[in-house]
Amino acid sequence: MAPRKLQVGVAGLGRMGKRHALNFHQNVPRAVLAAVSSPDAAERQWAEENLAPHGVAVYESYDDLLAHAGLEAVCVASATSVHADQAIKAINRGKHVLCEKPLGTTVEISQTVVDASEQHPELKVMCGFSRRFDASYRDAHAKVQQGIIGRPAILRSQTCDVLDPSGFFVAYAQFSGGIFVDCSIHDIDLALWFFGEDESRVKSVHAVGITAVEPNLRKHNDRDNAVGTVEFYDGRIAYLYASRMMAAGQEDVTEIIGTKGKLSVNLLPAENHVRIYEPGGIRQELPQNYWGRFQAAFTTEAIEFTESVLEDKPVPVKLRSAVAAVKIGAALQESMITGCKIWFDEDGNRTPKAQL
Amino acid sequence: MAPRKLQVGVAGLGRMGKRHALNFHQNVPRAVLAAVSSPDAAERQWAEENLAPHGVAVYESYDDLLAHAGLEAVCVASATSVHADQAIKAINRGKHVLCEKPLGTTVEISQTVVDASEQHPELKVMCGFSRRFDASYRDAHAKVQQGIIGRPAILRSQTCDVLDPSGFFVAYAQFSGGIFVDCSIHDIDLALWFFGEDESRVKSVHAVGITAVEPNLRKHNDRDNAVGTVEFYDGRIAYLYASRMMAAGQEDVTEIIGTKGKLSVNLLPAENHVRIYEPGGIRQELPQNYWGRFQAAFTTEAIEFTESVLEDKPVPVKLRSAVAAVKIGAALQESMITGCKIWFDEDGNRTPKAQL
Amino acid sequence: MAPRKLQVGVAGLGRMGKRHALNFHQNVPRAVLAAVSSPDAAERQWAEENLAPHGVAVYESYDDLLAHAGLEAVCVASATSVHADQAIKAINRGKHVLCEKPLGTTVEISQTVVDASEQHPELKVMCGFSRRFDASYRDAHAKVQQGIIGRPAILRSQTCDVLDPSGFFVAYAQFSGGIFVDCSIHDIDLALWFFGEDESRVKSVHAVGITAVEPNLRKHNDRDNAVGTVEFYDGRIAYLYASRMMAAGQEDVTEIIGTKGKLSVNLLPAENHVRIYEPGGIRQELPQNYWGRFQAAFTTEAIEFTESVLEDKPVPVKLRSAVAAVKIGAALQESMITGCKIWFDEDGNRTPKAQL
Amino acid sequence: MAPRKLQVGVAGLGRMGKRHALNFHQNVPRAVLAAVSSPDAAERQWAEENLAPHGVAVYESYDDLLAHAGLEAVCVASATSVHADQAIKAINRGKHVLCEKPLGTTVEISQTVVDASEQHPELKVMCGFSRRFDASYRDAHAKVQQGIIGRPAILRSQTCDVLDPSGFFVAYAQFSGGIFVDCSIHDIDLALWFFGEDESRVKSVHAVGITAVEPNLRKHNDRDNAVGTVEFYDGRIAYLYASRMMAAGQEDVTEIIGTKGKLSVNLLPAENHVRIYEPGGIRQELPQNYWGRFQAAFTTEAIEFTESVLEDKPVPVKLRSAVAAVKIGAALQESMITGCKIWFDEDGNRTPKAQL
Repeated sequence: MAPRKLQVGVAGLGRMGKRHALNFHQNVPRAVLAAVSSPDAAERQWAEENLAPHGVAVYESYDDLLAHAGLEAVCVASATSVHADQAIKAINRGKHVLCEKPLGTTVEISQTVVDASEQHPELKVMCGFSRRFDASYRDAHAKVQQGIIGRPAILRSQTCDVLDPSGFFVAYAQFSGGIFVDCSIHDIDLALWFFGEDESRVKSVHAVGITAVEPNLRKHNDRDNAVGTVEFYDGRIAYLYASRMMAAGQEDVTEIIGTKGKLSVNLLPAENHVRIYEPGGIRQELPQNYWGRFQAAFTTEAIEFTESVLEDKPVPVKLRSAVAAVKIGAALQESMITGCKIWFDEDGNRTPKAQL
Repeated sequence: MAPRKLQVGVAGLGRMGKRHALNFHQNVPRAVLAAVSSPDAAERQWAEENLAPHGVAVYESYDDLLAHAGLEAVCVASATSVHADQAIKAINRGKHVLCEKPLGTTVEISQTVVDASEQHPELKVMCGFSRRFDASYRDAHAKVQQGIIGRPAILRSQTCDVLDPSGFFVAYAQFSGGIFVDCSIHDIDLALWFFGEDESRVKSVHAVGITAVEPNLRKHNDRDNAVGTVEFYDGRIAYLYASRMMAAGQEDVTEIIGTKGKLSVNLLPAENHVRIYEPGGIRQELPQNYWGRFQAAFTTEAIEFTESVLEDKPVPVKLRSAVAAVKIGAALQESMITGCKIWFDEDGNRTPKAQL
Repeated sequence: MAPRKLQVGVAGLGRMGKRHALNFHQNVPRAVLAAVSSPDAAERQWAEENLAPHGVAVYESYDDLLAHAGLEAVCVASATSVHADQAIKAINRGKHVLCEKPLGTTVEISQTVVDASEQHPELKVMCGFSRRFDASYRDAHAKVQQGIIGRPAILRSQTCDVLDPSGFFVAYAQFSGGIFVDCSIHDIDLALWFFGEDESRVKSVHAVGITAVEPNLRKHNDRDNAVGTVEFYDGRIAYLYASRMMAAGQEDVTEIIGTKGKLSVNLLPAENHVRIYEPGGIRQELPQNYWGRFQAAFTTEAIEFTESVLEDKPVPVKLRSAVAAVKIGAALQESMITGCKIWFDEDGNRTPKAQL
Repeated sequence: MAPRKLQVGVAGLGRMGKRHALNFHQNVPRAVLAAVSSPDAAERQWAEENLAPHGVAVYESYDDLLAHAGLEAVCVASATSVHADQAIKAINRGKHVLCEKPLGTTVEISQTVVDASEQHPELKVMCGFSRRFDASYRDAHAKVQQGIIGRPAILRSQTCDVLDPSGFFVAYAQFSGGIFVDCSIHDIDLALWFFGEDESRVKSVHAVGITAVEPNLRKHNDRDNAVGTVEFYDGRIAYLYASRMMAAGQEDVTEIIGTKGKLSVNLLPAENHVRIYEPGGIRQELPQNYWGRFQAAFTTEAIEFTESVLEDKPVPVKLRSAVAAVKIGAALQESMITGCKIWFDEDGNRTPKAQL
């Protein structure tokens, strides 16, 4: 008797949507990619060629996707600006949801997804913080839990994309929420995860940014390089760097510094185990994008989400973490644009200045 | 309409057999693990608990496995000493075969599999040289083909296992063919692959070995550390090191040195991207065994073997390579034991001494 | 005919003073260590045993050192709080001066040394920013000048000391000026050097700090871990981390990120070329202190200072750089303690808030 | 009272001779470079310009160098073919001798230096095995002595020069003794040092070589890439690689593998602490020659040799080690040319075949 498989649909077939669709199709033994949707004709064409021959239904309308017979779960991989709407629609139609990060570009929008989810405790709703599924981050987290670095006190983390000279990121910036919400959200989530989601109440945030290669980002109140500092009430600090202009490749590096030791994750990025010796020195190639670095993590994410649905277990990442991360990311973005440091009181409300 | 899936059986459920079985079960979308067999009760017990609930048939007898209704292909993962027999039986029963390396411990035995295969050109028969499916080795091979290191002239390669203080390798040595046939066979295969399988005619081999930690290996004419040199007629050299006593973990390193550059593969083994900073320095953990290093390669191997059967394409590794590798490995083993350098003429026959 | 050698005195024989004294004695062919001074009896005892036998005069009083017959130059290596006084005294006695960093803990004090120096243009006065003499930093700087990373836009730099459980740093903190003036001053100087000392006008600074291991530092308005951000008017950012609690060793790392590439310096610190393979992984030892990392740089510094005196050439590091660095360091320290971001106008004056 | 300094002369001003001369002149506080000699006019011209102004006498004739008033010690840095003659002459004139490796290209010639030295036990005579003075090798050796890798059993070591397309090495090969005597001599010396000079009796050697880039080397019975294996009677193996065609730079790597751990020295060569991030990946530059890697070791060597003379202490490297190393190097060279494995009995005499 063949075991039951989860019927999954993927909404959005852009850069990430295609990857999620193929991932569910090829790498998740307990799931079946049943349907996909995209408002974009070229994207649907791709699906007709690559997915339809394997029995995957292709829709233009997201509503039609939700109406697909037997569909049980949706992976929302569309533009950030519609993440929340699509997630809520799916929840209201009784579908489990794996939503790409961030839930929304503001706390308010993100919270609406949490609210909808709380109305449907029978549904699994998860925000896809892919790094929590990466083997190296998991190993680091387990080591911290074991106490090998003492109490973690400082977290340095960066999300740095390779320079894309096509200007893609300028257009993208109108909807992305900005570099802190789009990129650093991962690093913020790591800070919450490594410092403890329950204890970590943010005290202040401060950020600065520049446009070193893409001055047009200023039109959308965005920057191409940004540095942020997040201070927590229990005496911990996360400091973050995000960039859109790496020359060598994707550089997502994290250091967790504790009172008795330190862990680094991906300090020296590498595409694989090959080194090239040539005139000029020894060279190591890098992954060229986020997927290249985290492909296996996305697979684990999809497998574990599927398992949590099929076995009715809690999802591995609590949904409200996603709101906490957006709160910090949006404040950093605001601080970068206004130049002002932003303070929070111990209840999480904005305040003119915290008591020192 | 669901696409057709290949019905696969796995013979042998020892250390590698279990891994192959789980691999076909979980990671090969186009294959179904239909049945397994093992003469060992404990191994079958494991299969009853872990595979049978998913619909996998469990047999004591290999013949019963071959008789399993609908079975199309067999993965031979039993003891080296029965590889050839089981492969030939499967071929004669009309099954495609993926056979763990080596085909046999001697050229003569290995050749019998090739002979059987040639009687059945309609069947896919492949010897599993897993490194040929590893992303890093493939990248290195592609770079060599592109000419970036000029003409490859020297290959250094090692297969070094972590020390297993249980003495497992002593018992294992009676049937393994010895350290050069069991471990270095991978490095020899890499030399043939990187130097060109068609051009590479061996001229001489020489080896020395010691028993640094396991003197009992001498009973089986084996050693725990061995160094071998293989000279080819077209002016190339491969030199090999194999060991059973690594302290830190699995260390399988290869360097390909050409007239214009060099490639190294896995020069500094690492379990993942984590580094541990602690009193004493910075530490990086290592994979603890061959599977830890090459797990993804085994998956690719199984996927590509499955694809070659389903789509009737040539298998990615020619079967006769496996005989060429055993020929060199067995000669190295002999040289290590006798102390004598062994020469071959240009036709591949043993000769008292090659003309210089 | 033996060439003329510079007669040098070293003031202060604490941790750094001893090193400077031995450095001039052993490693600077064109200098002679003529005399040393220290108010501390134990330090003088060390000098009596280690230096006096080689003809070095040992004084209790700094004035006596200055009066030593034939003395031409002084290396001020005493406590930070007397750097400026001793330097000015030496200048007024007609001695060339190599002064340990920082000149003083405030801009005003530091400026007094510059003023004194400007009264005596015939004397060489240099502040010892040792990293400018390090072969790796020099190589990086030359590469930036060659344009290989485009325009440098972001500088990340850290000065991280190994944890000293003796509590030494608490007592030290009363006079050091605090972690940004004592440690990060090096990183600030690097920012000025890599971004261009003439162009780099600071726009804002912001810092946060914690006491993760030494709460007593708060008595002296200091912290044991601190993160600072420095924004410059020409659209560049330096972000800094300083720590007193590294487990593995001295970790002084710098990254210079440009529009076309990046350089890292000492990303993975190592004591030497040895790696240790052991159960647990591969380990690399680290230098245990600043001297261990920069010993050769101190020698180059002393050699070049000596040469600039003997050959009447400009000193390699302009003295006023030292004031610019202290200005930023002291503002970061203030920001860390008050929690307030500090702004400067384009003329370098404090301002309530810069125009955005 | 100024302490006494050793009056040193350097014989030979070729590539290495210039370096030795400058080294003694600049970096050895207790030595004075008093005189140099070279039969080559261009080399003497260089000395007239660079050394004579500092009071160094320049001679054409080596005999005149030896006759220089007050000369106490000679550093023999001339062509390998005259090492022994010059060393013996110096000994007979009562001079201490630091002789570049190898003493000679044969055991017989090398032994003549030992014999002369034994006639003059009052003189310090040392062969300059520079790696024994390198901080990393010394650290590794100390760690082995402490037992952290158990019993050392396997040593892998390579001396690999960057490709010099000028063909210099072809002319050089007539006098160098060949690649094993010229390059691998260092690795052989390391094997003797790490395995224990007193215990290590060689049992067999075997070597193969190719001319991948310089076929003309065959005229001088030499090769540009060579692999050798050395077996010792106490169950240890050293295996060596030497090359003249590295693309990236000087690659002198050693691994010492013991029963409980392993040490690697310089596994990933680097010019300094800088990494370059650029399209194509992360790059690290390498030293371009032996001096670039071992400059500090040469300084330590000169300092310690000087000290052993001034303080009448034993030299740090026993002279007879140099003969043992040449014995193995010359045998490897012969094996490479003849194709024959060479055996020694337990007394060190050549034998048709050792008893197994």
